[in-house]
Amino acid sequence: MFNSIALVGGTHGNETSGIQLIRNWQQFGLPARFDELNVSLSIANEAALAANVRFVEEDLNRQFTLAGLANESRAKEAVLAKSLNQQLGPKGNSKTDFVIDIHNTTSEMGATLIILEVDEFHTQLARYVKHHMPEANILVEDEKPYLDHGYLCTTGKKGVMIEVGGQPQGMLREDVYLLTQTMAEVILDFCMAYNNGSISTDNLPQCEAFRLGENVGFPLDENGQRTAMIHHALQDSDFKPLMPGMPVFRTFDGKDITWNSDKETYPHFINEAAYFKLDVAFATAQRIIL
Amino acid sequence: MFNSIALVGGTHGNETSGIQLIRNWQQFGLPARFDELNVSLSIANEAALAANVRFVEEDLNRQFTLAGLANESRAKEAVLAKSLNQQLGPKGNSKTDFVIDIHNTTSEMGATLIILEVDEFHTQLARYVKHHMPEANILVEDEKPYLDHGYLCTTGKKGVMIEVGGQPQGMLREDVYLLTQTMAEVILDFCMAYNNGSISTDNLPQCEAFRLGENVGFPLDENGQRTAMIHHALQDSDFKPLMPGMPVFRTFDGKDITWNSDKETYPHFINEAAYFKLDVAFATAQRIIL
Repeated sequence: MFNSIALVGGTHGNETSGIQLIRNWQQFGLPARFDELNVSLSIANEAALAANVRFVEEDLNRQFTLAGLANESRAKEAVLAKSLNQQLGPKGNSKTDFVIDIHNTTSEMGATLIILEVDEFHTQLARYVKHHMPEANILVEDEKPYLDHGYLCTTGKKGVMIEVGGQPQGMLREDVYLLTQTMAEVILDFCMAYNNGSISTDNLPQCEAFRLGENVGFPLDENGQRTAMIHHALQDSDFKPLMPGMPVFRTFDGKDITWNSDKETYPHFINEAAYFKLDVAFATAQRIIL
Repeated sequence: MFNSIALVGGTHGNETSGIQLIRNWQQFGLPARFDELNVSLSIANEAALAANVRFVEEDLNRQFTLAGLANESRAKEAVLAKSLNQQLGPKGNSKTDFVIDIHNTTSEMGATLIILEVDEFHTQLARYVKHHMPEANILVEDEKPYLDHGYLCTTGKKGVMIEVGGQPQGMLREDVYLLTQTMAEVILDFCMAYNNGSISTDNLPQCEAFRLGENVGFPLDENGQRTAMIHHALQDSDFKPLMPGMPVFRTFDGKDITWNSDKETYPHFINEAAYFKLDVAFATAQRIIL
């Protein structure tokens, strides 16, 4: 049973669609069909919002490891994380049954549900979302135990992220906003059905998902300067199969660099602006069935 | 005759396509056909680049009025503007014949040439660009005299801007990069032809252009909070005719707001992220023939 659900926006201060959705639901209320759910609505990083930046000093969505929450850092987001952990968590012994944290990306990832565990519950959730919102993507980041992640949503007993794109930082597109709203509502519909006992894995069809692989960096020269950009054939092709030999980068002197692997991958977070300074070009994934 | 041409990128530190083009031409050289031109390449605001922001304290591309260049402001970009004015200008008595300043936008404006005067020279330039790059748009901002603008490019005897989109801030798309490169090359081709005396208005066909009207703001409530977003029918429709009665905004409680005017306009800078905090939704324009 979900007795308490937290919907959070503004974990990154320039990801506008989740922020606007939270504000609108605060003003107009949630759709009436969710009246029986106990849902809190909050904006995580108001200071980053005011400054129109992802974060002021450190990435808030990397602060929520148990070690991070126990350290003495005085960085603005480290302090904020401890406060949010008291409000939503505390992590590992949480008063909140389910934390849903809303993000957006400059990558063309459409509406993506990010889950951090593959167990009965998350398999049901993923199948339910995919069944009721076929255009959704399911991304699985279970490369380490749930509590080892530094994500804000891990303050809940269970936690997931909504990630929608493409949308530039600091502005709002109606298409991205509507996908965000739809996915949030489908997840809350699932919570209602789960509470009513009407969910079982058996009555939901299996679904496609993508298990996170690793980050692929931009090619750099000996001075650490980038020598290539994302190839136009890869740009905006998130979650589409990238086959061996297909172009990945175009160098600034006009040559193609191809996917030099013996198997296909499913790239995502392609050309995400927040990772550009880190020289991360995209992440790989393996296609799986849940 | 153009004896000195300045190509500038990074006037806004998170507009990556112009920055990368300048860096690549610095590394690989300009195309050989431009060898006879005297072209300087520079990055305007390295501090904003390092911080991955549009500007550190004030918008650099609003500092170059004669009054602004004469004042005592110690803001980082005000100080930088005075230094750049010595290097490129001084404005009103410039050593540089032509300053070409390269920008990008989150709006779907394609490759846009912004000119600040409609005289014989700029008419030739606009027609030449449109003739050799038919996908280009010509935007005319001649609502005040050339020297009254605060733009960096007005440090030159003549100055124009290249504005290409849509591209999120702080990342690089190959399509936007290539449009930027193509427009820069076509402008330099024009300079060669102009120097050779092979340009006259008579031998270039007339072209379509758009004369800047005014900014249209987002609808706000009594607390200054936005009540609507750009309508999906308007999003990405830069320079397409917006007719009376067509939808412009979608309110957060689901109503459409239409273009309430008795004549068409040509919206651009639709949903530009840099203007979002200023509550500017788009700019209007009138279609003209040059």
